[in-house]
Order: sequence, then C-alpha cells, then structure tokens
Amino acid sequence: MAFHYPNGQPYTNNETKPTKKQARQPEATTLFGKRGMTLEEELNDSNQYYRLHATAVVYKKPTPIQIVKVDYPARSQAVIKEAYFKQASTTDYNGIYQGRYVDFEAKETKNKTAFPFRNFHQHQIEHFRACLNQGGICFVIMKFVPLQRLFLYPATELISRWDAQVDGARKSISLSDVIDNGIEIKYQLNPIIPYLDAVDQLLKRSNKGV
Amino acid sequence: MAFHYPNGQPYTNNETKPTKKQARQPEATTLFGKRGMTLEEELNDSNQYYRLHATAVVYKKPTPIQIVKVDYPARSQAVIKEAYFKQASTTDYNGIYQGRYVDFEAKETKNKTAFPFRNFHQHQIEHFRACLNQGGICFVIMKFVPLQRLFLYPATELISRWDAQVDGARKSISLSDVIDNGIEIKYQLNPIIPYLDAVDQLLKRSNKGV
Repeated sequence: MAFHYPNGQPYTNNETKPTKKQARQPEATTLFGKRGMTLEEELNDSNQYYRLHATAVVYKKPTPIQIVKVDYPARSQAVIKEAYFKQASTTDYNGIYQGRYVDFEAKETKNKTAFPFRNFHQHQIEHFRACLNQGGICFVIMKFVPLQRLFLYPATELISRWDAQVDGARKSISLSDVIDNGIEIKYQLNPIIPYLDAVDQLLKRSNKGV
Repeated sequence: MAFHYPNGQPYTNNETKPTKKQARQPEATTLFGKRGMTLEEELNDSNQYYRLHATAVVYKKPTPIQIVKVDYPARSQAVIKEAYFKQASTTDYNGIYQGRYVDFEAKETKNKTAFPFRNFHQHQIEHFRACLNQGGICFVIMKFVPLQRLFLYPATELISRWDAQVDGARKSISLSDVIDNGIEIKYQLNPIIPYLDAVDQLLKRSNKGV
C-alpha cells in the first residue's frame, strides 16, 4: 500500500536514512489530515505505522459482503458478478496493543456541535458491551469534520449515553461532552493519527478509577 | 444466523427451557462434526455459542474483496457488479477471551499423515510473529479431514517449523508432531468445537514455561 506524507511526498520505509530532501523538509506546525485522505485511510496509515514500529497490531476488518454470483473464467481469477453490502456485526477495527485487546469504531460527522447517535447501531453498542465485559479497551474515534477535530471517546461513556437516549434522552452527544469525557487527538506527521497516545491516557484514567 | 444441532434440529436460544422433545434426545457419544458443516461453519457456530454465554468475543473476519464496480439502483440496495477476492493480510479469526487477545487461523487437510505448509502464507506467519510479540494467544486449528481429528497447534511451534522449512527442512508438519505439540480438540454438542478448553491448556502449559 502506497502512502504519503502530508506534503504529498510518498512514504518510503527508510526512517533511519532520510534523503537530504526529506530531511530539509520543514515540519508543518498544523496538520489538517493528509490531503484527500478519508478518516479510514488516515487510520489505516496510522495502523501501518504502528505495525512497522511493532507498537501494536491493529487492522480494519474488511467490509462484509454477501456474495451471490461468482464466475470462474480461471480458478485464480474468480470474478464476483453479484454481491451486496452487509451490515457489519461488530466494530471496524480491532487488534492488540501491549498485551491488551483494543476494539474501536471510527466515525465522522459534519455536525459542529454534537455527534448524532444515528452514526451507531445497536449491535455495535452490544459488541462494545461484550468486549468491555471481557476486559477489552473499547472506544470511538470521532471526527468533527467542519472543526477538523478528532477525539477518542470511551465506549463506557458512549454506552451510558446510548442507554439514556433509548430511554428518551438526547439523540446525540454534545461537543462539550466529547471534550470533557473524551481525549483530543492532534494530527501529526507519523503516525498521522496518534490514537495510541490517547489510549495510554485512557488507561491511566481508568487506573485512577475515574 | 440460523444454526443447527448435530441431529439437524434448529437451535433456539432457550437453553433454560428445553422442549420435551429436545430433552429426550440422547447425547451422541461420538460427534464427527455437524452434518454438512464446513470447519468454518463449525467455528462460527462455536463462536456464537461462546458469545451467547459471554465466554469470549471472537469473530471470523469477512473475506477481503476488491470492489471494482457498484451499481446504485437505489441507495439502500447498492449492487456490486464486479469484484475480486483479495488475499487476506492477517489470519481469519480474532477476538478477546478473558482479557487476552486471541488470534488464529483454521485449516483443513485431506492428508492423513502430515499438515502441508502450502496451507499457510508468509504474511500469516509474520502476523502471528507480530501478535505473539504483543502478548497475544496465537494458534492454528488444524483439521485432518480423513481422520476427523482436530488440533490446536501453537503458533510458536508453527513459526519454528516454518522457519526451518524455509532453510530446507520438511515442507509439512507430521501428524506425530501435531499430536505431541498440539492439543487435541474433541467435537462435542455445544460448542461443537470447544477450542477455548484447548486454549486453557495452552495457557497452563506456557505458565509452566514448557
């Protein structure tokens, strides 16, 4: 998979020997995501960085597809001719970070003041509940696109808000709630989304019993 | 997802109140897999059982597909018209079991005396290495179809055999090696493949430093 620095230069895995040109490149002080990359691409990029550096092993799960018709012009080149997108039964990302199971969902909103619950499904909430019950680290990476702000929001908080809205409370999580109970993640050069730093903070917080 | 008892009766989630008919059903003493189920289906079934009983949260990852062409007759019914199977970059199954990250691959062979390495890919071995390095529980569930025997074989052993065959050693793992270094899993009623019992044994073994 080819990926690029925010300045558009292709990434090459020779960190110890940067070319003179790369070394001369000034670091941007503010990064608003890599040009033209979706949140998913930014996370895939970050996960690849974390894997290369043996920090964690996290992948996005493939999109689940219901295959209906396949042609086999040659066995090695089966062509799927009819298939449908299925709703995922779990969250999109999982893996292992220093012995701990991590499980998360990544979501964007165009809203500036709150994160609507319609971005989530009941089965994802139940999946979080089951994983937390087993001792997993579960969260959502929320991006407020108009604000270009990213947060790690703990699944424990999400679940309590979700259960409340089922009982009639507000149908979204306010930005101030996200700021107060989440952990902001600032875009940087590599990994572009350093979400494991936020996970470290989350772990410290839960060790304090907060 | 509908699933069935080995006798073909559909499974209904009312364990506490079995119907009289089900209660009278004698338990089979030997089970050779559910009729007509593939190893994948047996494992999905077992994972569903484990999830329902809050024992573990493990899923098979969806098959990765490269989508080339999608028709949108209506937004809710997008039809994939051209797509191709991609090689998975990881193993097929992962999840969490009592706080521990588990990661495994399930493979069948028609061979009676050995498990050929052609069932594995280099990137799967590297994935195991990376996950073990993070403290994950990694293994293969091997099925010798003609023998109807199932084993959990630790990824640590697999990696050492793989590295040796790259250096010219045998291109398969002998059945006696699998018997000696793996843990046999006997089919049972529910879950049909009780592989977490074998994981418990694996953990005991590694705690003893064997």
